[in-house]
Amino acid sequence: MGALFKSHSSSVTAPQGFSAAGVFCDIKRLGTGKGSSKGNKRDLALIVSAVPATVAGMFTTNQICAAPVKLCAARMKGGTAQAIVINSGNANACTGKQGFADAVAMSESAAKQLQLPASQILVASTGRIGVTLPMANVNNGISACAKILGATPEHAAHAAEAIMTSDTRVKQVAVEFKLGGRTVRIGGICKGAGMIQPGMSATGARPAAIPQGLHATMLCFITTDAAIEPAALRAALSEAVAHSFNRITIDGDMSTNDTVLVLANGLAKNAGISMAKRQDFATFQSALSHVCLELAKLIVRDGEGVTRFVTVRVSGAQNFKEADAAARAVANSVLVKTSWFGGDPNWGRIIDALGYSNATIVEEKVDIAYSAPGSKKRIHSLKKGQPTKTPFPQLCAAVAAKEFDLHIHLNLGKAAAVMYTCDLTEEYVDFNKGDVSDPTTLGG
Amino acid sequence: MGALFKSHSSSVTAPQGFSAAGVFCDIKRLGTGKGSSKGNKRDLALIVSAVPATVAGMFTTNQICAAPVKLCAARMKGGTAQAIVINSGNANACTGKQGFADAVAMSESAAKQLQLPASQILVASTGRIGVTLPMANVNNGISACAKILGATPEHAAHAAEAIMTSDTRVKQVAVEFKLGGRTVRIGGICKGAGMIQPGMSATGARPAAIPQGLHATMLCFITTDAAIEPAALRAALSEAVAHSFNRITIDGDMSTNDTVLVLANGLAKNAGISMAKRQDFATFQSALSHVCLELAKLIVRDGEGVTRFVTVRVSGAQNFKEADAAARAVANSVLVKTSWFGGDPNWGRIIDALGYSNATIVEEKVDIAYSAPGSKKRIHSLKKGQPTKTPFPQLCAAVAAKEFDLHIHLNLGKAAAVMYTCDLTEEYVDFNKGDVSDPTTLGG
Repeated sequence: MGALFKSHSSSVTAPQGFSAAGVFCDIKRLGTGKGSSKGNKRDLALIVSAVPATVAGMFTTNQICAAPVKLCAARMKGGTAQAIVINSGNANACTGKQGFADAVAMSESAAKQLQLPASQILVASTGRIGVTLPMANVNNGISACAKILGATPEHAAHAAEAIMTSDTRVKQVAVEFKLGGRTVRIGGICKGAGMIQPGMSATGARPAAIPQGLHATMLCFITTDAAIEPAALRAALSEAVAHSFNRITIDGDMSTNDTVLVLANGLAKNAGISMAKRQDFATFQSALSHVCLELAKLIVRDGEGVTRFVTVRVSGAQNFKEADAAARAVANSVLVKTSWFGGDPNWGRIIDALGYSNATIVEEKVDIAYSAPGSKKRIHSLKKGQPTKTPFPQLCAAVAAKEFDLHIHLNLGKAAAVMYTCDLTEEYVDFNKGDVSDPTTLGG
Repeated sequence: MGALFKSHSSSVTAPQGFSAAGVFCDIKRLGTGKGSSKGNKRDLALIVSAVPATVAGMFTTNQICAAPVKLCAARMKGGTAQAIVINSGNANACTGKQGFADAVAMSESAAKQLQLPASQILVASTGRIGVTLPMANVNNGISACAKILGATPEHAAHAAEAIMTSDTRVKQVAVEFKLGGRTVRIGGICKGAGMIQPGMSATGARPAAIPQGLHATMLCFITTDAAIEPAALRAALSEAVAHSFNRITIDGDMSTNDTVLVLANGLAKNAGISMAKRQDFATFQSALSHVCLELAKLIVRDGEGVTRFVTVRVSGAQNFKEADAAARAVANSVLVKTSWFGGDPNWGRIIDALGYSNATIVEEKVDIAYSAPGSKKRIHSLKKGQPTKTPFPQLCAAVAAKEFDLHIHLNLGKAAAVMYTCDLTEEYVDFNKGDVSDPTTLGG
């Protein structure tokens, strides 16, 4: 898939007409009397389009959703937006009326700096739950960002850094491709690390098709200079998220703040993409899906304490709902995840998790195998419910790899589902147990 | 509740006519060439009634269920049983036709030693999944047990030890009470430690009312000298399990082997209990429920790596199904459980878990509070969705206790549910990651 697109050294500033910035304005530490964060990691980002852009968004389906999510979901109805302001260090979740007023004020502050209507500004936050934003610092950060906006790879990287919380590295991707002779680019940045099993919808309302999910906030911001009709952009994003962010889990906790936003400003001057123009739409969909999947995988690989990246591939289920239930049960089983940490190819825990999932399972039909990522060469640990004669050290070697695919065939039907997940480690527990002597270290 | 019954120094041998034994016969290590287990912990137990007893059982609803579970479920139809043979170290799960034949052979071996029909023998196993039983050792163990059966507290304790796997201590309870002037006793032993979130039913079939569960095997064997009709015994056990074993979780994984069996041999010579005799039935129900709840709590307290025992009490839900969903989401949230390990009163993670549960939640109505176990003195961290002014150190002190109650009031209705759970610790992860250089250490 990657070979289809030319990659670009920048991310959200790769498409024409987009600028970005990221600064440190001390959002996390404020009010604790403990001084500023170690290393003054950037904590406020601005992404701006030179012209109004078509917008689409997907938001957490958690019933407890943060003020910026509520504001964005409402502003999606306008169909266009021109800038996004994002802070890390504070989720602005469970902050009541003050929190919503602060989200609106954040957008107004950016609007003032950028000389745009507030209705064109989208807002996102990530960090601790239940603490109101230090608005003076937020406003200082917005003002500082507005002064230094630029389109270099460094500007994009600073924005990508500013949205990080427990992430250990910047996550960004950009691709370039041709549409009707015009060069089109899509760039994206994201953050994750913990409280990660998104289940997003376009309205935040929970459709039956989106399974119960898990939690650290994931945020993703995508820019493109493609010209595309709003309905086509919404459809493409929904499809891309369904196969990427909504298929990852780190710890099975769905956040209050999960957000994906895409701005399409049309400056590539391609003939506008609509769903009726099947080939153009398919090309755009393919590129957007690629960007979302690459970013989603980066989130899992950089999950808190993660040492192994595992792709769980369930096939042979009676229907998609059951394939999904089986894949999620395995991908979220605490016992399966700890066995991966130990490099233990423990098929007993895997079949146990299948057995208690909501998928129909017939013990005598289940196959379990491992492969290198994407490889067709499989090493079976179980065939038709019985252990194979594969030597134990060979199974251990398959699970010792930092990345591997787990193939589960239920042999009951034709439906399949995939989940991208990771191991559960002592470092994850150590990180998330926090330090009550310093409440700012406690996860939100 | 405990004050209603006189406790007894023994457990399964407290009721009249029951004898027990537990021996070491090297079930776990066989075939690894590594010699016998450290300390030669007992691994085979026998519990025998002097006369045929009325029987009731509850079994895992995992679709992947072990051979002994299948055999027991079938033998429940007879309505009576006289002995139970149990091994630890090997779950006899995912062992195919050979596994079922081994379970039958185990019962035949015990039948021969005890000179009883095999149909009167019940079987249970716990340990590693997917390895067939070392039947010569099992038979040696049964023979050894049969020779030393006795009714002393030591005999009962040896049986309780023999069923342990990663448990660190023996779990047993016995109570004595009066029925129509006759002294009646109920005794029980159990084991747990990991792969614990039972969801049992009388047939192993999954009724809609039993929620998806979790996993280390839990086994529980209860004896009583009460005279009770089969239907009344089944009803009483079902009710007792619904409020005890089916309400605990350690790691959210439901085992392939979860089993609760009760034998009632009538030697107390009380007037037979039936559901029509309301007062006698209520007294018996109360005693059986007490025994089951005490044993279930012992399992959670001795869970792998557990440092905190938490009772999650959800009230104010719209209906029981939603109260249960809310309580389970919190009790199984990896982030909530790690925060407890750190002594972090993190209400943000709790309300987040409520928000992604299948319960209806209105952020502005949620109250969250802590108390000492059973105490009415509550310390609120959240009222109507907003943090209280309770000083942070006071909240930390509430969560620093080794045992505490978490009270969640949804303020939407009148339904309530309780879950008994624990923290998630680095020791749990370390224990369950296993040691691939020694496969016998790997959990089943």
